[in-house]
Amino acid sequence: MSTVTRFGISMDSSLLDQFDAYISQKGYSNRSEALRDLVRERLIHSEWQAGTHETIGTLTLIYDHHQRELQSRLTGHQHEHNAMVISTMHVHLDHHHCLEVLAVKGQADAIQRMADEMLSLRGVKHGKLVMTTTGEYL
Amino acid sequence: MSTVTRFGISMDSSLLDQFDAYISQKGYSNRSEALRDLVRERLIHSEWQAGTHETIGTLTLIYDHHQRELQSRLTGHQHEHNAMVISTMHVHLDHHHCLEVLAVKGQADAIQRMADEMLSLRGVKHGKLVMTTTGEYL
Amino acid sequence: MSTVTRFGISMDSSLLDQFDAYISQKGYSNRSEALRDLVRERLIHSEWQAGTHETIGTLTLIYDHHQRELQSRLTGHQHEHNAMVISTMHVHLDHHHCLEVLAVKGQADAIQRMADEMLSLRGVKHGKLVMTTTGEYL
Amino acid sequence: MSTVTRFGISMDSSLLDQFDAYISQKGYSNRSEALRDLVRERLIHSEWQAGTHETIGTLTLIYDHHQRELQSRLTGHQHEHNAMVISTMHVHLDHHHCLEVLAVKGQADAIQRMADEMLSLRGVKHGKLVMTTTGEYL
Repeated sequence: MSTVTRFGISMDSSLLDQFDAYISQKGYSNRSEALRDLVRERLIHSEWQAGTHETIGTLTLIYDHHQRELQSRLTGHQHEHNAMVISTMHVHLDHHHCLEVLAVKGQADAIQRMADEMLSLRGVKHGKLVMTTTGEYL
Repeated sequence: MSTVTRFGISMDSSLLDQFDAYISQKGYSNRSEALRDLVRERLIHSEWQAGTHETIGTLTLIYDHHQRELQSRLTGHQHEHNAMVISTMHVHLDHHHCLEVLAVKGQADAIQRMADEMLSLRGVKHGKLVMTTTGEYL
Repeated sequence: MSTVTRFGISMDSSLLDQFDAYISQKGYSNRSEALRDLVRERLIHSEWQAGTHETIGTLTLIYDHHQRELQSRLTGHQHEHNAMVISTMHVHLDHHHCLEVLAVKGQADAIQRMADEMLSLRGVKHGKLVMTTTGEYL
Repeated sequence: MSTVTRFGISMDSSLLDQFDAYISQKGYSNRSEALRDLVRERLIHSEWQAGTHETIGTLTLIYDHHQRELQSRLTGHQHEHNAMVISTMHVHLDHHHCLEVLAVKGQADAIQRMADEMLSLRGVKHGKLVMTTTGEYL
């Protein structure tokens, strides 16, 4: 069981007013939740910069499945890395284009390299790596 | 059938040398492919800034599925928007945490708003929207 | 005079431990200061997305001052916009290259357009707009 | 004297049409100039990720100059680092707030650390590091 700590923070009223307006616009139910989100976002960013933690990423790819040998190359790259593909989702966008999302577990560095290799393949039209987290300490 | 156009560009040799080193490090097979990727990336960024095109996004969420009513709220938000969820992928990370990825089609603005609402829910620990494309003109 | 408000927030101990490690690594003296920085960062980002507030930006340019007519064009663009250049700093980097930083005041939208126009000029090799703030409510 | 190389690239006509629309909107005079900008941007990004090159950054700070000892601390941090402050620009925004921009030369890593330290000081309300370049090979 995780325990919850409560602590006080101080903020200029003018800053707090702006923040309250922001969180109500975004739909947050209270300040704590909004502040926790800012903290988590920063910690995950920092974890990925360090590179060496085991973490989770999702890689979104848009590719042309008519591109010769692309699918076998994409699969090949998934097997050459210490980063492990946990699951994939595939969506047919049109006659040519597929959207594929890979959920990947591994060291931040290894996930980044695997993403770079896939994104540079001919036929992969666009893509982006989301650097997220195992959620362990969040 | 799409036609291919070939045109010339000029570049200082010192810049081109650096670029050649970069593309070989990233694994690109040739300059055209690397330049096309830079162009696509920029156009997609610009399309999302404009806000009003129909496009594709993927939303990655890490959440605690023990959070009361979270899953029904997440589902609720998917139905309140013009943005259409095409497909979802769900991965169990540990006893508490789930990774969910939603592939979403719609106007850039509507996708962004739906993402904001989901990311601000209590129990959603982290998340990121990838702004990609239908691939139509790429 | 601005008044200061103190309020409580709650956080899972595991998340707080990670945050404490982060802020000590970054050199923050206490949690309040670190949290205020996260809040300000987010509000400024949101102010720029809205586009319509009067705000402050700094535009960094690297350019080749041997490029014909570049300096007069840069000056021209500064006069065509509602965004007002408050001050500039100029540094000679080498025989060819100058670093110039412009502090600009105006509506977020107008500053962005002025930056786009300058960055696309021939001879401007690199540049970036920092979106900051008048500091009014911070 | 730098020499200029001319080479051909191929692009689907539909992609090229979109790119032509983009560069005309941004005000570029031709494709070469727009493509060179994309290449430079990517190379500079990659140089900063590597961390170890000598390069140039500009650090924008918004701070409250009434904050006790802040200015002497800011100066102190400038002397403790291998990164060298080349020049600074100072603008009075209002009774409390100053905008200061520092042009810094040094290893990407050292510049980043100096920026982190300054941004975490009490009284520094906002700030951002622009990672640019000496322009040497551009």
